[in-house]
Amino acid sequence: MDLLIINPNTTVSMTKKIDEAAKKVASLNTKITAVNPSDGPVSIEGYFDEVFAVPGMIGEMQKHPNADAYIIACFDDTGLDAARCVSNAPVIGIGEAAFHIASLVAGTFTVVTTLSRSIPAIKHNLGKYGLLTRCAGIRASEVPVLDLEKNGSDAYQKISDEIGRALLDDRAEAIVLGCAGMADLAASLSAKHHIPVIDGVSAAVKLSEAIVQLGIGTSKWGGYRRPVAKEFKGIFAPFSPK
Amino acid sequence: MDLLIINPNTTVSMTKKIDEAAKKVASLNTKITAVNPSDGPVSIEGYFDEVFAVPGMIGEMQKHPNADAYIIACFDDTGLDAARCVSNAPVIGIGEAAFHIASLVAGTFTVVTTLSRSIPAIKHNLGKYGLLTRCAGIRASEVPVLDLEKNGSDAYQKISDEIGRALLDDRAEAIVLGCAGMADLAASLSAKHHIPVIDGVSAAVKLSEAIVQLGIGTSKWGGYRRPVAKEFKGIFAPFSPK
Amino acid sequence: MDLLIINPNTTVSMTKKIDEAAKKVASLNTKITAVNPSDGPVSIEGYFDEVFAVPGMIGEMQKHPNADAYIIACFDDTGLDAARCVSNAPVIGIGEAAFHIASLVAGTFTVVTTLSRSIPAIKHNLGKYGLLTRCAGIRASEVPVLDLEKNGSDAYQKISDEIGRALLDDRAEAIVLGCAGMADLAASLSAKHHIPVIDGVSAAVKLSEAIVQLGIGTSKWGGYRRPVAKEFKGIFAPFSPK
Amino acid sequence: MDLLIINPNTTVSMTKKIDEAAKKVASLNTKITAVNPSDGPVSIEGYFDEVFAVPGMIGEMQKHPNADAYIIACFDDTGLDAARCVSNAPVIGIGEAAFHIASLVAGTFTVVTTLSRSIPAIKHNLGKYGLLTRCAGIRASEVPVLDLEKNGSDAYQKISDEIGRALLDDRAEAIVLGCAGMADLAASLSAKHHIPVIDGVSAAVKLSEAIVQLGIGTSKWGGYRRPVAKEFKGIFAPFSPK
Amino acid sequence: MDLLIINPNTTVSMTKKIDEAAKKVASLNTKITAVNPSDGPVSIEGYFDEVFAVPGMIGEMQKHPNADAYIIACFDDTGLDAARCVSNAPVIGIGEAAFHIASLVAGTFTVVTTLSRSIPAIKHNLGKYGLLTRCAGIRASEVPVLDLEKNGSDAYQKISDEIGRALLDDRAEAIVLGCAGMADLAASLSAKHHIPVIDGVSAAVKLSEAIVQLGIGTSKWGGYRRPVAKEFKGIFAPFSPK
Amino acid sequence: MDLLIINPNTTVSMTKKIDEAAKKVASLNTKITAVNPSDGPVSIEGYFDEVFAVPGMIGEMQKHPNADAYIIACFDDTGLDAARCVSNAPVIGIGEAAFHIASLVAGTFTVVTTLSRSIPAIKHNLGKYGLLTRCAGIRASEVPVLDLEKNGSDAYQKISDEIGRALLDDRAEAIVLGCAGMADLAASLSAKHHIPVIDGVSAAVKLSEAIVQLGIGTSKWGGYRRPVAKEFKGIFAPFSPK
Repeated sequence: MDLLIINPNTTVSMTKKIDEAAKKVASLNTKITAVNPSDGPVSIEGYFDEVFAVPGMIGEMQKHPNADAYIIACFDDTGLDAARCVSNAPVIGIGEAAFHIASLVAGTFTVVTTLSRSIPAIKHNLGKYGLLTRCAGIRASEVPVLDLEKNGSDAYQKISDEIGRALLDDRAEAIVLGCAGMADLAASLSAKHHIPVIDGVSAAVKLSEAIVQLGIGTSKWGGYRRPVAKEFKGIFAPFSPK
Repeated sequence: MDLLIINPNTTVSMTKKIDEAAKKVASLNTKITAVNPSDGPVSIEGYFDEVFAVPGMIGEMQKHPNADAYIIACFDDTGLDAARCVSNAPVIGIGEAAFHIASLVAGTFTVVTTLSRSIPAIKHNLGKYGLLTRCAGIRASEVPVLDLEKNGSDAYQKISDEIGRALLDDRAEAIVLGCAGMADLAASLSAKHHIPVIDGVSAAVKLSEAIVQLGIGTSKWGGYRRPVAKEFKGIFAPFSPK
Repeated sequence: MDLLIINPNTTVSMTKKIDEAAKKVASLNTKITAVNPSDGPVSIEGYFDEVFAVPGMIGEMQKHPNADAYIIACFDDTGLDAARCVSNAPVIGIGEAAFHIASLVAGTFTVVTTLSRSIPAIKHNLGKYGLLTRCAGIRASEVPVLDLEKNGSDAYQKISDEIGRALLDDRAEAIVLGCAGMADLAASLSAKHHIPVIDGVSAAVKLSEAIVQLGIGTSKWGGYRRPVAKEFKGIFAPFSPK
Repeated sequence: MDLLIINPNTTVSMTKKIDEAAKKVASLNTKITAVNPSDGPVSIEGYFDEVFAVPGMIGEMQKHPNADAYIIACFDDTGLDAARCVSNAPVIGIGEAAFHIASLVAGTFTVVTTLSRSIPAIKHNLGKYGLLTRCAGIRASEVPVLDLEKNGSDAYQKISDEIGRALLDDRAEAIVLGCAGMADLAASLSAKHHIPVIDGVSAAVKLSEAIVQLGIGTSKWGGYRRPVAKEFKGIFAPFSPK
Repeated sequence: MDLLIINPNTTVSMTKKIDEAAKKVASLNTKITAVNPSDGPVSIEGYFDEVFAVPGMIGEMQKHPNADAYIIACFDDTGLDAARCVSNAPVIGIGEAAFHIASLVAGTFTVVTTLSRSIPAIKHNLGKYGLLTRCAGIRASEVPVLDLEKNGSDAYQKISDEIGRALLDDRAEAIVLGCAGMADLAASLSAKHHIPVIDGVSAAVKLSEAIVQLGIGTSKWGGYRRPVAKEFKGIFAPFSPK
Repeated sequence: MDLLIINPNTTVSMTKKIDEAAKKVASLNTKITAVNPSDGPVSIEGYFDEVFAVPGMIGEMQKHPNADAYIIACFDDTGLDAARCVSNAPVIGIGEAAFHIASLVAGTFTVVTTLSRSIPAIKHNLGKYGLLTRCAGIRASEVPVLDLEKNGSDAYQKISDEIGRALLDDRAEAIVLGCAGMADLAASLSAKHHIPVIDGVSAAVKLSEAIVQLGIGTSKWGGYRRPVAKEFKGIFAPFSPK
C-alpha cells in the first residue's frame, strides 16, 4: 500500500520528523512517502498561512496520483475538503484522525496546541466534524511551531504543564497533541501522565491503512464530487480541472 | 494480536457470519476469536433485549482477559461503556466504528437498520458520540434480525430500496449498515449504488488493529475507571469487581 | 393507586430509606411498595454496576405486573428505556424526575452527585432528555453511595460545600441531589442555602401520581414498543418476552 | 391547596372550559379558581396579542397573592418569566407542562396547534426549555382559537387529521395539543389514535399539585428575583414593584 | 429617511442620551426621532419590568406609523417580535444589532451588562437568534440602569474591570455593551482595551439605515404576519388590531 | 469611504455585474472599486476552486492596503478568515452579509444557490457563524455559475421555482440568493413572491458602510491576529508576512 503524506509547509526537517513518526507505526507492507511543497510558508500558524500552503499541497497530490491514500500532516486539516475532491482514494487529516481515535478510547479529550491564534480554527473543525461535544478544552502551550524543531527548547515542559491543567481543570480523559511537530512527544507524555496521548500523524497512518484495507474510498456525492472542468488562469493554469 | 469479537446475542450462526466477515479483513498477524454468551436473547431488537445480552457479554470478556482489543458486535453498541470499565485494552462497538469510518470518507451518512423500534437507540448513540450532525437519516428496512440469516428472504432488496431513498431524499453521501447480520451485503450494495457502504464488523476490526498498533488503550479517567470493589449478590456474585 | 418503587441495588437499608422518603410525600390513596432485587450489586457506582442491577430490576417489574406506575430509584435512571418496553403504565426514573421538576421552578440547576465517575452517565442522560442546556454544572461530592447510609459520616458537609460552590461558580438557580440515598437531606439543605433542592425519589412519586391521575401511560410507539416475542437462553430464559 | 388558573385572554367561555378541564383532574383537597383579566384581547394568536394579555394576567396574580400555585392557561406560556418574578409559589405554563409530561412517557412528541403563525413562538419556547430535540414536529390545524368554542365547527376533524400525519410523517410517539381551548378533546383523540394525547391545562394542574406537595417554590436566584422597587408611570403605576 | 427610536422605559434623560448617541452616527439624510412612552417603568431590569414597558412602546409605533424603520432601544430587545407584527418596515432591537455587528468583526464576543438578573434574558435571546455559540460570556457589572445616568458614579470603572476579565478569562475577541444607557462609553472603552466595543444604539441606527436602503422590510410570513383583527377589551381597546 | 470589492474568480463580466449591483446601493460618498485577481478559476463551484481563488484575492487586498473596508464577493465567503488577518479594516463576506440581514427581518430563511455540490460548504459556514438554526433550507437550482452570465438561460425560472418550494415546504420567511451572480435578480423575485429576497453583494455593501461609519474594525484578538512574520517560499514569496 502506498501512503502519501503531505506536510503542507515547506520545512524539510519537519517533513523528515513526520516521515519517521509515520514509518514507526506503519505496517510492513505499507510504503510511506512524505513530501512537502516547494512553494509556501515554512510553518502554518493560523488562517493566513493556510491559504499559501494549500495550492502546493494539492500540487503534490497531482504529482502522485496513484497513492492508495493521502494524509494531510497539518493539525488544522488545511485544504482537506479540496483534497478530497481530487481523490477517489481516502484523504485523512491528522487533526480529524486524532479526534476520532481519541473518541474511541475516552469520553472526552483536551487538545494541546501551539499558539492561541490556532484555537478558533481547531474549534471550527471540531464543530464541523461533530466532535465539539467530545472536546473538554483547547489549550495553547504558546510554543511556536518551529521551536518544536529546536534542540534545548522548553517545549516539552510547557506542553506537559498544559496536560496537567487539562486533567485537573477540564476533567480531560485523553489528550490530543495539536501539531504535527509534536509527533515524537506522545509516548513520553502518555507515560508521564498515565493518560492516552494521541499524535495525529501516527493516528492518520493507521486510519488510512484501515480504510484502504476496507476497500472504501472518498464519497463522490455531495461536496466531494470531482471538480467541474474549467479554465484556471495565470499561475494556477496547471491546476485546472479537466 | 488477539481480537475478541463478542456477538452479544446467542445465535451461533450469526457469530459464525461475524467471524467470517472479521477474518476477511483482518491482517495476517491478527487472530480473530468470535464468541457469544450462552445466556441471553437469540437476537437484539430494542432496549429490552439489550438488558439480558450484556451480562453474558461481560462474562465473555472476563473469560478472555488477555485479548489485545474487544469488539462488541451489536450495532446498538450495547454495554459498550460497561465493557470499557473492565478493560485497559481498547473496546470498540461496531456502531461507533461504522459512524467514525463513514465520517472520514463522506460529509454525511444515512443508517439503514432492521426494525424501526431500533431507531431511537441509534439516535441516542449518535447524540452521545457527537456524530448526530453527520447523520442524514436513520431508515428502517423492517427486516427482522434473524431474517438476515435465512436463505431466500427479500432482505437484500428491502435494504437496497432504502439506500435508493437515502440518496434521493436524505442527500446521503455514504451508507452505514445498521446490523451485524448485514456484514456480508456491504460490498455488493456499494457496487450497486456507487457509494461507500460501511459494515460495522469489518470497520471495528480495522479500527481495533489500528488502535492496538498505536499502543493506545481505554482511558482510565472519567467514566471508564475500573469498577469499585464491591459485593454482587445472587446469580451475579461471580461478576463482583475486586 | 399502587406505585412500585424499585431500588435497583441490593442494599435493603437503602430501600427502606427510599420507602420512607416516598411515603412522606405520597398522597393518602397512594400505596407505596418499595422493593429491591435479590441479585445484583450492593450499590450502583458507574456503568459496570448498572449492567448487573437491571435484570433483577426488570424481574421485580415482572413480579408486580399490576402497578399503576413504576419508579426506578437510581439517579442514573438505569434500565429506564428497557423498563418502559414492558409496561403500559408510566415508568419514571428519579434522575429525570428531578431534572424536570427543577426545570419548572428555576432557569438552571446544578447536580450534586456522589463519585466523579458518575458524571459522564449523568451528562449523557441530560443530553438524551434534552435538558443539558438547563444544567449549570454536575459536581461530585466524592461521597461513596454506602457512606450515605452510615451515621457520623461527613457526607452532609461535603454535599453542602458543593452547593455553596454551585451558587457562586455555576450561578445555579436550583440544586438536584444526584443519589437516591440523599433523599433525607433535601429539606435541610434547601433551608440552609435558601434555594430549591430537589430529591429525585419524592419528585418521582409526585410525577407518577400526576401522570396516573391524568390517565396517561407509556407510549407504545417508537422505542418503547412491547419486546418482540423470542427465546432467551440459559439463566435469562424466565425473562423471555412472549 | 389553592390553585389560581389565569386564562390570559378575556373570553369568559374559554375560562369556563379551562375551569372544567382543571376541576376534572384536580385532587379532592385542591381548590381551583379560574379567572381572566377584564382588559386585553379576546384570544391570543401570535406575538402581538400576547403583549396586551400579560399586564392583566399579572394583575390577576396581584389580586390573588396567596395562591399555592399559579397556572398560565395559554399554550404560548405568555408572560411566564415575569409571573415567576412576582411569586414565591410555583408558576406553571400549560405549554411547558404538556412538554414535560410528554417527555416522561414518550421519546418524542408532535405539537398540534391552532394557526401557523403560532409555530415560531412555540419553537422558541421549546428551544428555551431545552426540549426542542424531543419535539418531532409542530403542526398547525389552521383552526382559529375561538372556533374551538363554537358548536358544529370542523375543528375536531382537522386536529385529528394532523395527528394522523404526525404519526406517519414525524414518527411522533405522543401528541401535545397546542391550545388551552382543546382541553376537552384530548381523551377522545387519544382513544382514536392509540397514542398519548396531552392537554396542557390538566397537565399543569397535576404538576402544580405535585410541586406544591413537594414543598418547592420558584427559585429566587437568577432571572426570577423579585422585581427591583421602582416607579411605574401612568396607567401602570398600580403595578409598581415595592 | 425617518428612524423612530423608542426607549421603552419612561426616563426622559435616557431617551435624550439615546437620541444623542443615535444622531452622532446617523447619516446626513436620516431624521432621528427618539421617544419614550408616558406609561411604564422608569427603567427595565428583568422580565417583570418588560411587561409594562411594551404596551406603551407599541403605542409609540402606532402614533408614528410612517417611519422607515423602528429601533427598540432596550438591550433585552423587549417586545421585538410583537413590534415586527405591526410593521412592514424593519424593526431592529439594539441587542440583536450589537450581536450581529460583533459577529461581523470578531469570532466571539462577551456581553457586559448591568445587573446579573438580566443575564438569563440575554442568554435566551442569543439562543433564539442563533448567536449563543458566538458569545464567550455574559458578565454583570452590577451597575443599576439609572446609575448610568448619574454623574460621579463608578459605573465606568466597573464596566472596564469586567472587560479586563473578559479578555483574560473568556478569550473574548470583542465586547458588547449590554444597556442602552452605556452608549456614551463605547469609544473610550474601546481605546482603553484595544478591542472592538459595540454599543447597540449606534449599531441599530446603522443597520436600520442599511436595511432601508436595501429596500427590505419585515417578512410578513411566519410569526410576523399582521395581527388577526379582533376585539381588545378595557384599557387596551385602543390597540385592537383591525 | 473606499470599499474594495473582490470577486475572487477571474471572470471580468461577473466583476462588472457585482460592481453595478454594489454601486446601485452604495451611498453617495462611498467609492466602490470592484476587482478580480488575474490568477485563478473562472468561477468558484465547490471546495477545489476556492483553493486557487484565495491567493489572488489576498493579493488584491495587498495591492489596495488603504481601503476602508473589503468585501469578498463569493457566496462561500471563501478566504474570509485569512483576509481578516491582513486587515484592521472590516472584511465582509457576501454570504454572511446576506445571512445576517435576513436574520434581522425574518425568523427563518432559505438559501437558493447554484449547484448542489455547494450545499455542504454553505452549511458549514452557517454552522460556524451560528445561524444554522435560522436556516430553513438550502436548495440548489442546478444552474452553473457562468450560466447566470448568459442571455436567454432559464436560470431565473429555475431559481423562482425553488423559491416557490421553499415557501411551501420549508416555511421559509425570507430568501437568500446563494451566488454573487444572482445580484440582479433579487428585486424582481421579491416582487413576484412577496417575500424579502436578499442579495449578498448589496447586503455586504451596506453592512460595510455601517461598520466603517461606526468606527469599528476587525478584532485583532483570537484567530484574526496579524500573521506571524515568516518566510514564504517559491511563487508565494511575495505574500510573506513581515
